[in-house]
Amino acid sequence: MSNHSNPFLYNCWYAAAWSHELVETGKLARMYLEIPIVIYRGESGKCFALDDRCCHRGAPLSLGRVEKDCIRCMYHGIKYDTDGKVIEIPGQDFIGPNHKVQSFPIVEKGNLLWIWMGDPKLADPSDIHDYGPLSDAAWKGFEKEAYLHYEANWMLIADNLADFSHLAFVHTNTLGGSEDYAFITHPEVEKLENGFKLVRWNKNDSPAPYHAKINPDLPDKLDRCNSVQMIVPGTFFMSTIMAPVGWDPKGKNLDGVKQYRNCQYMTPETKSTTHFFWNYLHNYRTDDPAVSKSLKESLLEGFMEDKEIIEAQQKMLENKDRFNSRGMKGDEALIHFRKVYTALLNHERKNFNFHERQVGNSII
Amino acid sequence: MSNHSNPFLYNCWYAAAWSHELVETGKLARMYLEIPIVIYRGESGKCFALDDRCCHRGAPLSLGRVEKDCIRCMYHGIKYDTDGKVIEIPGQDFIGPNHKVQSFPIVEKGNLLWIWMGDPKLADPSDIHDYGPLSDAAWKGFEKEAYLHYEANWMLIADNLADFSHLAFVHTNTLGGSEDYAFITHPEVEKLENGFKLVRWNKNDSPAPYHAKINPDLPDKLDRCNSVQMIVPGTFFMSTIMAPVGWDPKGKNLDGVKQYRNCQYMTPETKSTTHFFWNYLHNYRTDDPAVSKSLKESLLEGFMEDKEIIEAQQKMLENKDRFNSRGMKGDEALIHFRKVYTALLNHERKNFNFHERQVGNSII
Amino acid sequence: MSNHSNPFLYNCWYAAAWSHELVETGKLARMYLEIPIVIYRGESGKCFALDDRCCHRGAPLSLGRVEKDCIRCMYHGIKYDTDGKVIEIPGQDFIGPNHKVQSFPIVEKGNLLWIWMGDPKLADPSDIHDYGPLSDAAWKGFEKEAYLHYEANWMLIADNLADFSHLAFVHTNTLGGSEDYAFITHPEVEKLENGFKLVRWNKNDSPAPYHAKINPDLPDKLDRCNSVQMIVPGTFFMSTIMAPVGWDPKGKNLDGVKQYRNCQYMTPETKSTTHFFWNYLHNYRTDDPAVSKSLKESLLEGFMEDKEIIEAQQKMLENKDRFNSRGMKGDEALIHFRKVYTALLNHERKNFNFHERQVGNSII
Repeated sequence: MSNHSNPFLYNCWYAAAWSHELVETGKLARMYLEIPIVIYRGESGKCFALDDRCCHRGAPLSLGRVEKDCIRCMYHGIKYDTDGKVIEIPGQDFIGPNHKVQSFPIVEKGNLLWIWMGDPKLADPSDIHDYGPLSDAAWKGFEKEAYLHYEANWMLIADNLADFSHLAFVHTNTLGGSEDYAFITHPEVEKLENGFKLVRWNKNDSPAPYHAKINPDLPDKLDRCNSVQMIVPGTFFMSTIMAPVGWDPKGKNLDGVKQYRNCQYMTPETKSTTHFFWNYLHNYRTDDPAVSKSLKESLLEGFMEDKEIIEAQQKMLENKDRFNSRGMKGDEALIHFRKVYTALLNHERKNFNFHERQVGNSII
Repeated sequence: MSNHSNPFLYNCWYAAAWSHELVETGKLARMYLEIPIVIYRGESGKCFALDDRCCHRGAPLSLGRVEKDCIRCMYHGIKYDTDGKVIEIPGQDFIGPNHKVQSFPIVEKGNLLWIWMGDPKLADPSDIHDYGPLSDAAWKGFEKEAYLHYEANWMLIADNLADFSHLAFVHTNTLGGSEDYAFITHPEVEKLENGFKLVRWNKNDSPAPYHAKINPDLPDKLDRCNSVQMIVPGTFFMSTIMAPVGWDPKGKNLDGVKQYRNCQYMTPETKSTTHFFWNYLHNYRTDDPAVSKSLKESLLEGFMEDKEIIEAQQKMLENKDRFNSRGMKGDEALIHFRKVYTALLNHERKNFNFHERQVGNSII
Repeated sequence: MSNHSNPFLYNCWYAAAWSHELVETGKLARMYLEIPIVIYRGESGKCFALDDRCCHRGAPLSLGRVEKDCIRCMYHGIKYDTDGKVIEIPGQDFIGPNHKVQSFPIVEKGNLLWIWMGDPKLADPSDIHDYGPLSDAAWKGFEKEAYLHYEANWMLIADNLADFSHLAFVHTNTLGGSEDYAFITHPEVEKLENGFKLVRWNKNDSPAPYHAKINPDLPDKLDRCNSVQMIVPGTFFMSTIMAPVGWDPKGKNLDGVKQYRNCQYMTPETKSTTHFFWNYLHNYRTDDPAVSKSLKESLLEGFMEDKEIIEAQQKMLENKDRFNSRGMKGDEALIHFRKVYTALLNHERKNFNFHERQVGNSII
């Protein structure tokens, strides 16, 4: 993917957690880009992110205690403020300038927490790729937004999302519908500076199983469309239209049209594991909780199909012996995406050096 | 064992699977010499072996679908013929000359599948060391031939089979009978170019427990003999005679003589794990299924005793700190066997280079 | 901790096992300093320690059989005497001078076995730091002395014991009592050539929960004192006094005073795992087994609190990325202890070379 031993991009916002993962004064121990982080919600309701290793002897702050907006390590009682500065050491008055842990910018938007692992001076919350439907009352998502832990490099999930022909084979009975999809439909890919957009119509096709399950009176055939946007490093948005055959997408007639909105976020935990956040929203029968429940079940079933093949792929790719990857036409979007990502990575490495692995002193 | 970082011999046939492991259009994901392989039976009834990593993005073909004699990757639908050549890519017409995976010669003989991991031009099925009794109606084996997975280098199993004095201590109450065996019997070893033969008599000794269990009216003492042939890399055959005391092995009188035939195959999965295939055949009371059932149980009990000590040995040997192996007289056969193996390995390395680890391009 | 890739001290006695771990002719497979050892009790009642790898092919002697004071490998029957010398090889008369495994000095004192992993010529049992109360009838310990296996470097446990301010936060409801302890009490540290002593009084404080549990009629406040001695590498002794407020420690009046004695031993299994042995003794109501039982339960509860945070700390410290440890005043004892240890390590490396990792020949 790149020649860097450290393949992570630092100066960008990563999806870190859903808000519901942090209840009142709750704490969350989670690793991002191989750095252990504690995220906690203070009594003020605001969230903070610190290096999870107490600067004294490395005990996890995530085993600590939230006090107002501060957090206290529960090994020897060292107390940190929201910037990671030590403000109390039991039994001594002196606190030095290096008595601190790194703090990380963290922002709550909608129900999602975003973390910035790079140079804090560059962290601008307006750069967060917020997904409108998440905070739009017209769109209803899951009661609790979903999280999956992947035993795979995040880029393999991005690859998966960059070519929907896999719906035909991986998701035939869940999210897809027929294997023809891979043969007769084609994506229109729009290359962007920060990713790509992609539109894929399959017209006059059977309804997708997950859609049919909650809409029992569908006609035999529908015009279906997925419109995708992928943004480096790991943000994915999708609009889905299920329309009567012959429907004019440029017209304004929405009779018989049903739509979905879907967001997915991939955040590297390590080189070979990924945090995966997602939601799937609908804008009809929003007073019926069964719709959302069914969508969550169906999508989860489909996403577990992805997870199985992607994690199997990860294992295969870890054995590099005599394996050489060969391209196909459907790779257009993913190749562009990797190109964009690698350029950003090279740019970041040239301009910053804080992110190269720095080995600290050792006490064991 | 050798100075090669890659200690495997490639240009030879390895036992790969019992036929019953591949039911109709069945697939089997199995690693040999650290290369992941899919073996599948096509609709024609023939078996094929391909690199298990789809040439596109490495997804396992073993999660794919058999179509006639072809196999289709169920990630993006790429279809391979029996040679590993791509013959269909959904959504595109062009297929390049590198759209392929390596195929491996595989041959079904008797009930055993044999795979060739080296240069296919050298693969000659007549080189397979077929074990006659397996396809001889006079000899009856297990209803389902047996497989064990070993957490040990294959050579430690070969060592075990090269010195039967371990029967006295490891198998006292199962396959051996008395500790005297190690002290008073001695093998006659015949060194061969491709392995060794070995004959070990213990005369006037108690019957082996596994033999006594199915023959309750045995005399107190028997003349017992194991005749062994071991062939590089991992093929082992053994004839066992249980005869009345004083029996003349050169004569033709088989009154009161009972015999067994046994084959064992060791195939490296990785440097530290092994596929182990075996069967144990008898030629008396062959219409009584209880005999074969008892033999399978007894032998499995004995082989689990081997497995326990060999896997413990593997763990010990992985810790090389200050350990130096010292020889004993009983090592004669195993030392010759390792010499033969190392010579073959050196010869192969001098004449071929396809088997040195080639690192492919990386997509993660 | 040091710049040596091998951070172990060899020329010293390590706690190896409690006597009750080796019943009659019992064997124990245990690794010390990354060397696998078998300890066994011979028929004479004496214990012996040998390299656990049979010199023939590395099979574990701990799977072997004790015969009088000897041990026989149960793979090919090689028999070792108490010095690790081979004295029998089934089927051959010749035994060479290198047919042996390393033997290790081992001494049973009280109920504890001590092993010496270094130069046997230097092993002097009078150097063992025996803990008096263990063999003093006035002090009653657990019916079975306790063992815990730690997934952490032994030094992190030593660190824990070198600063009792952690009682305030880790053990508030078990061994400590109040968080004030960390703020208002201070240790008097005495630096020793082979470790340190430390006295920490907390006067006019609530009774410790574990003490109150077995003494329901305590006054509201007590004067409490822990007097600690730590000796390199991993020996810890502690005297605890629970006295009426205002008690004169220099006087001889023991009215209302209750005392405890505690020993803890840390022995490295590997760089990241530790054998941990301990006992906790009392000298009042010694005819009531409920006291000892309650103490064992309470202490175990407390030690599991330590184990949780220390093992979490170990995981954090294995990720050295951008972590730098910062000191605090309470580190005085642990810094001195590490200084003593490092000096001993450097001294040992200069004068001996037997302990540098020697890689043996390989049979796999």
